[in-house]
Amino acid sequence: MSGVTRPIAAQAELEALIARINPAQAAEESAVLAHLDDLTKPPGSLGRLEHTALRLARLLGDPPPPLRRRTILVFAGDHGVARRGVSAYPATVTGQMCRTIAAGGAAICTIGRAVDAEVVLVDVGVATPVPPDPAILARRIRDGTADIVEGPALSTDDALAALLVGAQMVHERAATSDVFAFGELGIGNTTAAAALTAALLDVDPDTLVGRGTGVDDAGLARKRDAVRRAVARVADRATSRNPLQTLAELGGLEIAALVGAILAAAAERRPVLIDGFIATAAALVAVRLAPAARDALFAAHRSAEPGHEVQRRALELTPLVDLELRLGEGTGAALALPILESASAILREMATFSSAGVSGKSEDG
Amino acid sequence: MSGVTRPIAAQAELEALIARINPAQAAEESAVLAHLDDLTKPPGSLGRLEHTALRLARLLGDPPPPLRRRTILVFAGDHGVARRGVSAYPATVTGQMCRTIAAGGAAICTIGRAVDAEVVLVDVGVATPVPPDPAILARRIRDGTADIVEGPALSTDDALAALLVGAQMVHERAATSDVFAFGELGIGNTTAAAALTAALLDVDPDTLVGRGTGVDDAGLARKRDAVRRAVARVADRATSRNPLQTLAELGGLEIAALVGAILAAAAERRPVLIDGFIATAAALVAVRLAPAARDALFAAHRSAEPGHEVQRRALELTPLVDLELRLGEGTGAALALPILESASAILREMATFSSAGVSGKSEDG
Repeated sequence: MSGVTRPIAAQAELEALIARINPAQAAEESAVLAHLDDLTKPPGSLGRLEHTALRLARLLGDPPPPLRRRTILVFAGDHGVARRGVSAYPATVTGQMCRTIAAGGAAICTIGRAVDAEVVLVDVGVATPVPPDPAILARRIRDGTADIVEGPALSTDDALAALLVGAQMVHERAATSDVFAFGELGIGNTTAAAALTAALLDVDPDTLVGRGTGVDDAGLARKRDAVRRAVARVADRATSRNPLQTLAELGGLEIAALVGAILAAAAERRPVLIDGFIATAAALVAVRLAPAARDALFAAHRSAEPGHEVQRRALELTPLVDLELRLGEGTGAALALPILESASAILREMATFSSAGVSGKSEDG
Repeated sequence: MSGVTRPIAAQAELEALIARINPAQAAEESAVLAHLDDLTKPPGSLGRLEHTALRLARLLGDPPPPLRRRTILVFAGDHGVARRGVSAYPATVTGQMCRTIAAGGAAICTIGRAVDAEVVLVDVGVATPVPPDPAILARRIRDGTADIVEGPALSTDDALAALLVGAQMVHERAATSDVFAFGELGIGNTTAAAALTAALLDVDPDTLVGRGTGVDDAGLARKRDAVRRAVARVADRATSRNPLQTLAELGGLEIAALVGAILAAAAERRPVLIDGFIATAAALVAVRLAPAARDALFAAHRSAEPGHEVQRRALELTPLVDLELRLGEGTGAALALPILESASAILREMATFSSAGVSGKSEDG
């Protein structure tokens, strides 16, 4: 394949993927709401589980199937901006944490086992060498991104290539996965996610910048400065109208892969639990590319990162878990998997008032 | 056994149970905190999961064991006060819902299966006849309580008998259960729980009364009135100094059973997820009887009932799940089971910085 053909083919692949994503209409909203109200419980008493059940039914039909075969995809990539001291950790930690995940000792491995999910780690572009390991899928596009303060993080071609890696990971596993949870790994990626979110939503970058993994005051100031300058660099080019270009300018390899994974899951009609701030930045890009992709997305948890709420408001998604997590790796998404299964199960397995012979609400209160 | 001996033996049994409950000191707090900070993640980045892990380690040792064998105990009982129209449902629903649970079609059955837990239903005193069913443990003390507005809900002997039923259910299952979740079923029991909480904590009853399963405005006014009058009835007798007597005056059979179950779980060193407003009222009684019982308690979820926060503040417990549930049956407790297991797993299975060769925080930020 020539250097000219490849990007064109990739662009066509993305367009074909987007074309497959349709609004979730597998069940009529009014019919699902009537079903929920006929379940043997006071109306609305299962709180947000009921709205979650409604969204699952819209995506998968009423009743939704069991969500027992669970795949957690963790995408790893490095960030040129990390060299500005925007993180509490050196960039070498991305590669070290890949090895820890591969060895089964990271938080996501532990929580993945606790919720009976398989964890799949994909290296899309870690900068420091990671020795070949059967537990790490090497799908490297390049050795990390360039510094977003200086110029684009990625060429559009590389962003597209990383996106298609993410999509491929989902396509390969859709037949054997009822549900996906997506997370990431990459020192410096809350900086990239803040810049990407600011550009996409046109909000003040300062409101989106938090301490990430726990940067100190001086690091936080450097991080704010980096995000502000990166956003300003692209502002006059109005890239926010082209989400793929914005992703290339300000995002990252693992973020691009997350975008593709989300699009593919939506195309395959698989519900997706998106983790925290970085994964939700990817969700913003995915929904810009294909608005109906939102119907497959479930906000897993309320991240401790301040920009996360801004993102969730934009996507109109309410999180299922609030444990003040700020780790990434997909840990919040993993913890929400049994809750998503519970929401599916109430529509599939609960008795109805009409079938169970239980009295409804008293007419006289 | 004579009518005189029995209560005395029961009182002795309660005292022996309480004597077995000691503060959780299976691990040194400072050592567990050091372990948590050595795990391959930024310090504190697992949020409230870390505090939960600390409490599990204090109770069970560091690392805590797997919490895979899960037993959900649901206690059912009726309430004389229900005839005042304080609930959206007629009292007959308690018995009907017992049959729905026995048939596996209730919310708690569904969610129990989703989180791989066994559900055990115990009838401590449903008023309307429930046909014998192998899936309902009949441990009936009496046919519901008396109206708490008029007089004591239960004799102290009956309250004690119900309490010991709850304790026995736990003792019988402790060897085969790593963790318990406790819930309840009983039309009118948010009214009893509000009265009990007001008397125990000496707070304005009005601040504790919510809509329960969804009572309308007129019913809510009747409920407020009933709680106010019940609390006023016992106020001058300063029963709050004797928690067992307060339980008998204002509580219920299923609430008494929950108190006993909590005490027994604490004595057996099994972590307990307490469900919402009613189960937490029982926890208040249990902790009054044996302050160290608190160390075994984990608040499962943030109930939509307004008095729940007052209770949690008194117990200094922070909930793990916030889904605006207001169903009872132990549904909130069940949903938190995988989160509790995840908290246990991070101490048991995560790699440490010292062992994994991962760089710590940069000295220079």
